[in-house]
This record gives sequence, structure tokens and C-alpha cells, in this order.
Amino acid sequence: MNGKKIPGDTLGIISESIRLSPSSVGLQPFKILILESEEFKQKVSAPAFNQPQILESSHVLVFSVWDSLTEKQSQDYLSFIMSERGVTLESLSTLRGYLTNIQKMNPDEFYHWASKQAYLALGIAILAAAELKIDSTPMEGFNKEELDKALGLPEKNLKSVVLLALGYRDEEKDWLLKMKKVRRKHSDLFVQL
Amino acid sequence: MNGKKIPGDTLGIISESIRLSPSSVGLQPFKILILESEEFKQKVSAPAFNQPQILESSHVLVFSVWDSLTEKQSQDYLSFIMSERGVTLESLSTLRGYLTNIQKMNPDEFYHWASKQAYLALGIAILAAAELKIDSTPMEGFNKEELDKALGLPEKNLKSVVLLALGYRDEEKDWLLKMKKVRRKHSDLFVQL
Repeated sequence: MNGKKIPGDTLGIISESIRLSPSSVGLQPFKILILESEEFKQKVSAPAFNQPQILESSHVLVFSVWDSLTEKQSQDYLSFIMSERGVTLESLSTLRGYLTNIQKMNPDEFYHWASKQAYLALGIAILAAAELKIDSTPMEGFNKEELDKALGLPEKNLKSVVLLALGYRDEEKDWLLKMKKVRRKHSDLFVQL
Repeated sequence: MNGKKIPGDTLGIISESIRLSPSSVGLQPFKILILESEEFKQKVSAPAFNQPQILESSHVLVFSVWDSLTEKQSQDYLSFIMSERGVTLESLSTLRGYLTNIQKMNPDEFYHWASKQAYLALGIAILAAAELKIDSTPMEGFNKEELDKALGLPEKNLKSVVLLALGYRDEEKDWLLKMKKVRRKHSDLFVQL
């Protein structure tokens, strides 16, 4: 990427696409850190093995998930729906049951379940960015423990999941641009039944 | 949903959006079963607790993932890239190292990692469908073991991950249509650093 900054309103459309993404039981059990400052990009650079797109990007989105669902978070969520939709708690009893089950997940189970919701939103963000002619690079290759520590995530009961570097392509230096996009054939991916 | 069928070319754009989705190391370790026939929708209806959108939909996409990465699949993938891009095996040595690590994952680790790739593609499919005015309902609520058995997935070394019902909204009967969309506030989801 060439370091050029994404305008605020364009970034706003991308973050809004994440905000509107659907998630299991509508919980949105995640938080997205938007790194714009050099200071914070520097902090994640080493945990991300100094991959160049961190510092060359305009912004790095750090998708992180809650480390569990607490009783208080469940109650807050139910109250939020009640006030947004003007419905009673009784009408949400099925949802309440689902939330109780989610509260009982062990930390690994919860992490994987919440991470999948974050990946769904990640996919939506990537497509939204592409429509806005913004390049994006999803990155799984980083040391989660070190990155979490660098951003103070454990104190916030958050765990990092995946990064998304956003910016503009470096037309001259990006060797991948000249390469053919490799994707499996339709017949290799789909079965019609 | 009202049972109306999605035209083939529209469905083709949605499946193409899944095919073009990025994935970790580009592997696309998944297979998507597209259920159109009444026969196959009936087969998954009971494992999906008879939720109405299965039978009311136009199509149900069953996102499934490989149960592991075998040495042969790694070799095939490297050969595919070599032929698509006209590059040597030596130039792919870093990727080869990543693939070797993925081959060593235990079944649970692999399932979660591959599922996240499927969820990224799921997000892209949902947004692509929305742009085409197709309603979609992602569904996690189903008995995976029973659904896998009903579709013969174990024999194909596949495991189901998530369902996506596609179709047209039932304007009269869909009580959710009249409800406000509930999403957390921007300040609750994002932190700017």
C-alpha cells in the first residue's frame, strides 16, 4: 500500500457496513479497534511480524471479541432490544434461553463462536471496501498474545481475532497486482442438489 | 419467505461472490451445497428443527468445510497455483510451509480455522444477495451431526458449518419486517486509536 489516507466519510461507510452486519442472535459480541495513528500501528507491527501492510496502510482494523458473555451483558442486550423495539421481556424468552446457553460456553467455545461472527462482519467489510475502491488485506498471521498485550486488550476483556489493513494499492511496487487471481473453479466449490 | 424462485443468473452472481472471496493462504477449504430440490430441503428440514425458512426459501446454501488438509490436497493446491500463475514450486516455499502447518492441525483446530474462512465468504454472500434484493437468513441453529448424515457429508470428508436460506420476503406474514433493526451504536462497537 502507498500510505495514502482514506477520507473519513469513506471509512465511515466501511465501519457502518460492519455495524449493520448480522450476527448470531444479533449479539455482535465484538469490538473493532481502528488504528490510524502511527503510534498504535507501531505497537502492532512487531506482533504482526513486521508485515509491511501495517505501516503502509491508511488504517488497520483489529477485530476483537469479548472473552465471554456475562449475565450483565445478557441483561443489557435484552433491555436494549426492549427499548429499541418497544417489546416486553416475556416476548424475548426464546432469545433469553439462547443467551443463557451462550453464557455457559467455555472460553474456547465462546472464542470460536464469537470469532465466526467477527469473520462474517469481516467479509462484509472487505466487500464494502472493494465497492469503494479501497484495498483491504485480511491478516491472520500475528502473535495474538503479544498483540493483545500491546493494545491492552486483556484488561478490556477482549481477545484479538483478525486484522484488516485498509488503504490504497501501490501500483508500482505491488508484485501481486500483476499476478492472476487464483480461485478454485466453480465445479470444485459447489454441488447443486 | 414466499417460496418464489431466484433466477439462475442472480443465483450465479451470489455463488460467484463466494468463489471470489478471499481466504487464509487462498486455500478455500470449503464446499457449498446448493439445495434447490424439495427432496434435499426436506432432508435438512428436521435437522434444522423444522424452521420454516428451509422449505419457504428458494435455495438453501449449506456451507461445509473439509475435515482436514491432506498432503495430496496441499500438493494439488500448489500445482494449481503453479499452472495458474506460471510460477515455480521454489517460489511457493513460504506458502508450502504454511500448508505444512495447517496439515498438522488437530480436527477441532482445523474445523474452527476452516469455518472462519467459510464465515468470511458467508458475509460476502449476504451482502451480494442484499445488493440483488435477495433476502438471506444465516442459520446456526441445526443439529450438525444429523444434517451431515442426511446429506452424506462424512463420506465426502466434509462437515457442515452454517446454512444460508435465500429467497424473497413474505411481505404479509413476516412479522420481523415491521420491527426496527437492532444494532449496537457505533460508539459501542468501535474504538478509534
